[in-house]
Amino acid sequence: VQQDKKRKIVELRAAELADFLHGELLGEGEKLIRGISTLQDAEAGDLAFLANNRYRKYISTTRAGVVLVGEKFDLRDKTLILVDNPYLAFAKVLTKFFYSPPEFTGISSSAIISKKAEIGKSVSIGSGSVIEDGARIGDGAFIFPGVYIGRDVAVDEGSIIYPGVIIREESVIGRRVILQPGVVIGGDGFGFVPQEGGHYKIPHIGRVVIEDDVEIGANSTVDRGAVGDTKIGKGTKIDNLVQVGHNVIIGSYCLIAAQVGIAGSVRIGNYVMIGGQVGIAGHIEIGDGVQVAAKSGINTSIRSGEIVGGIPAIPHKEWLKVSAVWKRLPELWERIKKMESKI
Amino acid sequence: VQQDKKRKIVELRAAELADFLHGELLGEGEKLIRGISTLQDAEAGDLAFLANNRYRKYISTTRAGVVLVGEKFDLRDKTLILVDNPYLAFAKVLTKFFYSPPEFTGISSSAIISKKAEIGKSVSIGSGSVIEDGARIGDGAFIFPGVYIGRDVAVDEGSIIYPGVIIREESVIGRRVILQPGVVIGGDGFGFVPQEGGHYKIPHIGRVVIEDDVEIGANSTVDRGAVGDTKIGKGTKIDNLVQVGHNVIIGSYCLIAAQVGIAGSVRIGNYVMIGGQVGIAGHIEIGDGVQVAAKSGINTSIRSGEIVGGIPAIPHKEWLKVSAVWKRLPELWERIKKMESKI
Amino acid sequence: VQQDKKRKIVELRAAELADFLHGELLGEGEKLIRGISTLQDAEAGDLAFLANNRYRKYISTTRAGVVLVGEKFDLRDKTLILVDNPYLAFAKVLTKFFYSPPEFTGISSSAIISKKAEIGKSVSIGSGSVIEDGARIGDGAFIFPGVYIGRDVAVDEGSIIYPGVIIREESVIGRRVILQPGVVIGGDGFGFVPQEGGHYKIPHIGRVVIEDDVEIGANSTVDRGAVGDTKIGKGTKIDNLVQVGHNVIIGSYCLIAAQVGIAGSVRIGNYVMIGGQVGIAGHIEIGDGVQVAAKSGINTSIRSGEIVGGIPAIPHKEWLKVSAVWKRLPELWERIKKMESKI
Repeated sequence: VQQDKKRKIVELRAAELADFLHGELLGEGEKLIRGISTLQDAEAGDLAFLANNRYRKYISTTRAGVVLVGEKFDLRDKTLILVDNPYLAFAKVLTKFFYSPPEFTGISSSAIISKKAEIGKSVSIGSGSVIEDGARIGDGAFIFPGVYIGRDVAVDEGSIIYPGVIIREESVIGRRVILQPGVVIGGDGFGFVPQEGGHYKIPHIGRVVIEDDVEIGANSTVDRGAVGDTKIGKGTKIDNLVQVGHNVIIGSYCLIAAQVGIAGSVRIGNYVMIGGQVGIAGHIEIGDGVQVAAKSGINTSIRSGEIVGGIPAIPHKEWLKVSAVWKRLPELWERIKKMESKI
Repeated sequence: VQQDKKRKIVELRAAELADFLHGELLGEGEKLIRGISTLQDAEAGDLAFLANNRYRKYISTTRAGVVLVGEKFDLRDKTLILVDNPYLAFAKVLTKFFYSPPEFTGISSSAIISKKAEIGKSVSIGSGSVIEDGARIGDGAFIFPGVYIGRDVAVDEGSIIYPGVIIREESVIGRRVILQPGVVIGGDGFGFVPQEGGHYKIPHIGRVVIEDDVEIGANSTVDRGAVGDTKIGKGTKIDNLVQVGHNVIIGSYCLIAAQVGIAGSVRIGNYVMIGGQVGIAGHIEIGDGVQVAAKSGINTSIRSGEIVGGIPAIPHKEWLKVSAVWKRLPELWERIKKMESKI
Repeated sequence: VQQDKKRKIVELRAAELADFLHGELLGEGEKLIRGISTLQDAEAGDLAFLANNRYRKYISTTRAGVVLVGEKFDLRDKTLILVDNPYLAFAKVLTKFFYSPPEFTGISSSAIISKKAEIGKSVSIGSGSVIEDGARIGDGAFIFPGVYIGRDVAVDEGSIIYPGVIIREESVIGRRVILQPGVVIGGDGFGFVPQEGGHYKIPHIGRVVIEDDVEIGANSTVDRGAVGDTKIGKGTKIDNLVQVGHNVIIGSYCLIAAQVGIAGSVRIGNYVMIGGQVGIAGHIEIGDGVQVAAKSGINTSIRSGEIVGGIPAIPHKEWLKVSAVWKRLPELWERIKKMESKI
């Protein structure tokens, strides 16, 4: 294995890779891999993978030197590596041989760091970033340029905060958290008492608490609690442009796709999966393991394990049937008129 | 009453509070309040409130020392304060006793302020913020770090501009306006003349004008007018990730929830309430007092006072009936087939 | 023609304008134009235009001195200029006589520019902007204050990068590209292998490649590829708060409205038009010239030239019929019950 520093250049034998993955080698062990790609775009020296049936058609025509597969194929001219989960295997190869995490840069002379802030060991802080009074940055954290860390914020060990992230006062960010560019943590929630002549603002004195291993996508927003905290549980991953309202509590290991909106005081369990552009009304409870189809609107609590879809959301199987009839409404209308004329 | 400087520490007697709220004390006037919380999460020394019937079940089990209520309860062991509007009373207590506004910091030496800008009295400007030529910042305004105030922008008295806000040239921001982190004011609108071989860009020479007491949530965007201005009326409150297109005119005291999209040249009246993720097509007029259910799509003008929902939006009562039948479409289909076979 | 420097002040004769536009002058050639406005808001010295039938009613009452029109009107007191495309003509007048592009400022002493970056001729770089190692900025590019240009990023000739834009490492930005404030280019895509006890992150080593003449609206996000690139083709225009997922490939001359979400690995052809708040599921192909109605949800590939709408999207004509019946579902339900009682 050979690597360079920045964009790693890799030279890797197929047998070596099968070994690393505890996979079964089918083909030439001496085949050299120099890059990594998709089945469609692969060049001769590339490693590719087949995990999604949608791309099965490319397996016989791909130019990839080696392909990670989850089942055997009768392809004599290809070198395959059979593994339990080709997508996971691919991710592990990427991480081990191709990806370089941000390299330690130390603290920029143009960062503006309060003397009342506590900075751990091996911390990087980029140009122009601002760290306010009472903030604590854990060991090995990487703060890119142009970041704002407010008063009394904690960012724990090994977290990566990308440029343009704003973390308002008192927020708590756990270990190995990744905040993509432009994320806003701790903005005031949308709380007003509606009134003639001027809605009265609810001051927001709660916090945002983000547990370990959470990742949040670019330009997403997580509002602070009014009183009490907004919480995102361990290992939950959130995509771009997602809105998390005040006092929302999200459990562990959830996956929340782009542009989802979660209104105030919603409680979400563990291992919940939410498709893109879903909206969840305020004060609702979503049980463990719930799955929500993209674009759905949830206006009532959902029990653990349910799979739902639609606006408003109903059981997913039911929703598929409803959609099938919905498409045929004009025909249905005609059939009703025809019957009426007969009776 | 005792307070500390930053996160206020409060010690407050129930009788004192009832007095402040012009409420009726039901229970022990000497009961001490030290914190503020929700009914579910309250500790013994906390003040809580009951405003939403959804949380009524917690009134008998809450550990809160004192609860703000809108009606009498027969609970001997609890100290209650009876007020007209418990939510408003709660907000007033929060504001008076628990919330601390940003403290005056003066002007950071690392802020970059044009000599051609006018800065009022008691203005705070944070590290790295940029104020361009011809900008005017009113007395007591608070500009956090990492803010961009473009050429000839006006930010009036007492406004609070959070980190990462971008205000492009010539925008006008009224008094006591609050812009949460990452808000973009004055970006070019989406205006192109579609053409083969290259859509022709409409230059945007209009402005954004935001009146007094407006609040805009994190990462929302308000585009400048093409010619003429985009306007947001006095006291209107806008949540996170909302899009306001070019030349939109929004009236006073509207409430617009997260992820709403308002296309170009829409005109919205006063006291309009728009639920989350609603979309409004271009060039439409929405009358005073209109209410729009979350996730609706509006493609036609709506008269004052109407309540609408659905995609496309129809009167809300009608929409509820439509939705009830929509859910039962598969059953309806079966019933039609059954009838057909009989005839 | 007279102009000033910043907000141009224009004095322009109607005949001169007709000449510039190769249009037919109907009325007084000596009429002076000093401003530009909409039909409704125009003052006596203003130029306005009529391109949208919705505003036809204002043609007889407008105070505009001169109006650009696409057909003749019998209005003796008005000066009109007849052109093929009034909207395009208006845009050309705006560009030529009223709009001033950002003026060259040179490189701010407070910009933080790596010695390993290459800066072209006549480049402007604003205060506090950060340019990392290996970045290349083309001739005449305009980088506003508060911008982050990551390692090995290329920004080509004449591009305009507004404040608060974040461009992560290795992204490629073509010529004359405009990125409105707060745009994030090159964030990691949402790629995780779901697993009990911790979803495994797919490292993202691909890039974002944006071709010439693209414009992207405020706070939109374009994720980098996992392996391989995310691409936006020449002349495509994207509105605010749009999400473009990893490995998406968008063709040339598309128009994509605000708050659209495009999931990973979607392929979009040329001249595609997508309405606001549309969602497109992952791994789908959208052919050339496809048009998608606002708020639609696309979960299956769409052939070239199709016009679609609805959730899920169906042919647009069909969708209009479905919607017409959808609104009358309660009536339909009653009619079915009535028939059942008769049989």
